[in-house]
Amino acid sequence: MADQALVLFSGGQDSTTCLAWALARFDHVETVGFAYRQRHAVELECRAPIRASLQDIGGWRATLGPDHMVDLGETLAAIGDTAMTGDIEIAMTEAGLPNTFVPGRNLLFLTYAAAIAYRRGLRVIVGGMCETDFSGYPDCRDDTMKAMQLALNLGMNRRFVLAMPLMWIDKAETWALADRLGGARLVETIVERTHTCYLGNRHDRHDWGYGCGTCPACELRAAGWRRWRG
Amino acid sequence: MADQALVLFSGGQDSTTCLAWALARFDHVETVGFAYRQRHAVELECRAPIRASLQDIGGWRATLGPDHMVDLGETLAAIGDTAMTGDIEIAMTEAGLPNTFVPGRNLLFLTYAAAIAYRRGLRVIVGGMCETDFSGYPDCRDDTMKAMQLALNLGMNRRFVLAMPLMWIDKAETWALADRLGGARLVETIVERTHTCYLGNRHDRHDWGYGCGTCPACELRAAGWRRWRG
Repeated sequence: MADQALVLFSGGQDSTTCLAWALARFDHVETVGFAYRQRHAVELECRAPIRASLQDIGGWRATLGPDHMVDLGETLAAIGDTAMTGDIEIAMTEAGLPNTFVPGRNLLFLTYAAAIAYRRGLRVIVGGMCETDFSGYPDCRDDTMKAMQLALNLGMNRRFVLAMPLMWIDKAETWALADRLGGARLVETIVERTHTCYLGNRHDRHDWGYGCGTCPACELRAAGWRRWRG
Repeated sequence: MADQALVLFSGGQDSTTCLAWALARFDHVETVGFAYRQRHAVELECRAPIRASLQDIGGWRATLGPDHMVDLGETLAAIGDTAMTGDIEIAMTEAGLPNTFVPGRNLLFLTYAAAIAYRRGLRVIVGGMCETDFSGYPDCRDDTMKAMQLALNLGMNRRFVLAMPLMWIDKAETWALADRLGGARLVETIVERTHTCYLGNRHDRHDWGYGCGTCPACELRAAGWRRWRG
């Protein structure tokens, strides 16, 4: 049980790198994704091809188990009412947060993930939360993750471990981590198959992948690629 | 803002007592309920009449603001797969928990509630979690609530207070609290209008209210009533 993990897997660069990290480290890995009428739902369509590509690459320690999809329907859109789920221009709010912030979204995702891990007997919950390229999301902070581990473990009477391999690295180091874990084939999979762009652009191809190239998510991904490539 | 509260209001005895407690104490109170294909969805139908009754009783400090309903759809049923949402007989599981336990249900409810409180500018989140008549639900424990307050506040960058007025009292004291807060009219409202029975029975009338009288929830409610009445 200690070597079985559930990866929060959205289909983006970060969670794909986390999935590879888990495949290299544990005996058995399952994935979970969330549909919440997100602005860039195209990300969800990337998930199955990415899982297939990682299995094609092979050589992992872990077997890749089932994928779990949780459909949150309109719930987040209703309570959040933010740019992430609506047709609003991305900007900073008065509270200094990007208006893509759905309050507590990662807390919800982690709670649902823990409920699945509880039922599936998985001990480690892996997420791509990162404080380094901190975009103003308090639910990505290391403090938050540690408090959440405590709350989940007390609330479910289990001993889950929340593992966040990207917490203290930046996007350049995330590319380097992927290269180290799965070499050129994994980097190629991430470039070709993962989605990051807030605008859902899948037709403009850059050396770092597809996207509009100008939204905050594309800029972060592209800048990390350039720093990594040197 | 310090005097504005959001009450987790299911339509049962405990959350109705919590709602009265909040109405007596704060300046402004809103309510939130969760639809999750629960076994006893009849509880949800009790909510509007109870709110109306409390307003009829009057004399509260607070104004009663809007009611928020969060429809979780099949989500909990899908991840929980337990007696609470299915057609399974209520019993104890091997883990020593009643099989009505949806792992982390209260953590989910609190996270959704906090997201609503965030948007509505409400500071206090009131819930009927109780450790005294502890039915084996770890997500009702005081430790869990305190860890959750920390996780929510770090994750949303706010200073919510989770207030749990029933945490250390038993069902007899909950009846006494209702009597103290709203007298005979509140007790009568709770008897007549709140729902507790796991089986959804609304036709068998006892002095303590409606219900089958034999499920664990009815037994707890009836025993508390008898101890309070002496």
